[in-house]
Amino acid sequence: MAEYTHSITVEWGDCDPANIMFYPNAFRWFDQSNWRFFAAAGLSKEMLFRDYGTIGTPLIKAAAEYLIPCAFGTRLDIVTEVTRWGRTSFDVCHRVYGPDGDLRIVGRETRVWAGRPADGSPGVIPLPIPDAVKEMLPAVGEG
Amino acid sequence: MAEYTHSITVEWGDCDPANIMFYPNAFRWFDQSNWRFFAAAGLSKEMLFRDYGTIGTPLIKAAAEYLIPCAFGTRLDIVTEVTRWGRTSFDVCHRVYGPDGDLRIVGRETRVWAGRPADGSPGVIPLPIPDAVKEMLPAVGEG
Amino acid sequence: MAEYTHSITVEWGDCDPANIMFYPNAFRWFDQSNWRFFAAAGLSKEMLFRDYGTIGTPLIKAAAEYLIPCAFGTRLDIVTEVTRWGRTSFDVCHRVYGPDGDLRIVGRETRVWAGRPADGSPGVIPLPIPDAVKEMLPAVGEG
Amino acid sequence: MAEYTHSITVEWGDCDPANIMFYPNAFRWFDQSNWRFFAAAGLSKEMLFRDYGTIGTPLIKAAAEYLIPCAFGTRLDIVTEVTRWGRTSFDVCHRVYGPDGDLRIVGRETRVWAGRPADGSPGVIPLPIPDAVKEMLPAVGEG
Repeated sequence: MAEYTHSITVEWGDCDPANIMFYPNAFRWFDQSNWRFFAAAGLSKEMLFRDYGTIGTPLIKAAAEYLIPCAFGTRLDIVTEVTRWGRTSFDVCHRVYGPDGDLRIVGRETRVWAGRPADGSPGVIPLPIPDAVKEMLPAVGEG
Repeated sequence: MAEYTHSITVEWGDCDPANIMFYPNAFRWFDQSNWRFFAAAGLSKEMLFRDYGTIGTPLIKAAAEYLIPCAFGTRLDIVTEVTRWGRTSFDVCHRVYGPDGDLRIVGRETRVWAGRPADGSPGVIPLPIPDAVKEMLPAVGEG
Repeated sequence: MAEYTHSITVEWGDCDPANIMFYPNAFRWFDQSNWRFFAAAGLSKEMLFRDYGTIGTPLIKAAAEYLIPCAFGTRLDIVTEVTRWGRTSFDVCHRVYGPDGDLRIVGRETRVWAGRPADGSPGVIPLPIPDAVKEMLPAVGEG
Repeated sequence: MAEYTHSITVEWGDCDPANIMFYPNAFRWFDQSNWRFFAAAGLSKEMLFRDYGTIGTPLIKAAAEYLIPCAFGTRLDIVTEVTRWGRTSFDVCHRVYGPDGDLRIVGRETRVWAGRPADGSPGVIPLPIPDAVKEMLPAVGEG
């Protein structure tokens, strides 16, 4: 599964007093997209947590470019792909399109395949990403 | 006024099931810091809206690096500076420190000095940044 | 149109470190439901703002009972109805069901039909609710 | 310790396009207040989780009355008290005052002293509230 698309609506509570989507919400949608992409490819949270021993894929880098402002009521399509698999980290790209197919936001995340330290402490350590995971979500490259 | 510091606490509702601060919250704090920095330098929202005719400083780019995860209850200090003034846009840098002075997150925003089109439409247009504003918040450079 | 149903998913970022949906999110969904219910009945935001001169329907009371906790990944159906029309205020009820039709949350909102004062000040004043609106969204009573 | 007060500012991102504080944020502040009240009385999260074996105090009921709208930049004081201790649940009241001491919002929460089932399942069960906790946070009654 090379990409995943889902749609969201810019809600009243997502917008600021200038009626512009409050910008951190885009990252909230990126995180949603990432979980849903994994689940759609067969990597449910149960598989991630139980079979692969991860606690999720926390962020080490996130960035977005806001090309066109989004106002209340705008329907957006978010297209998500993996653009790079590393040993313990990977890159995800999210493209957010408006109702006319106009590119509104481009987001990039670098995430780490994370587990808990062997001593049971609450810290976070990077784990090698299983090959099976890389095969289920082939990286498309930055092209 | 060259920099501004304020403190926040990572709240229960800011954290995800792995007890890691849900990453979009950092951008929420950056936005707070930006408004407070301007206000502390004498640029209240009333001045911005009424005297300078802006509708705020919407984002065109935002990025963050997450160096150390933050858990529930962590006290964070956010240090904010302007690093570049352009004609209609400017860059802001936010450094987020943990209780031991350890650098946890580095954020960068590019914001635009924005107004409404002369025809009264709800769009957003870039306006030249007044020299008085640039003097009140001197850019420190990227160093 | 007597009721409106829409579905949401409890996202990773909606949950707290105990993997329980952070409770204020339910009110966020209630607000979404209210706007969507109005729009589905023909009362778009443009009609509300332009034709009826409102600035929205701000809350004067909100309440929720949380009957069963919701964890990450739970699909929820939210059923929304108007239960009372007053002269300037109205009541909305939201029932949130889990994937097995199990009632998880019951929400109640009292909202006011709001406009701006004639003198242009930024306050909020209650306006009489138009009969046309009451007919488009018939109240079902508390039953 | 019979009551706890802390201050928050209504941020840009907390407000909707009508420049009214988006109402679910009040519940976010109530949750903050509750954790901070407990911590200020000596009941840190470590004590709650480790010494008392709880996973927190999830909500079973929440309600708020919004008496006066709050706009961007408003400084608010939140006064929190326990108003009732039951066997496994308790009531908390939050009063939110504006800069002139004007009462803006009154919130009420019913929370449960919660643990995990003995079989290790992810559900939530009510636990008897320790007397030591009731003594540290004496209930003031509804008066």
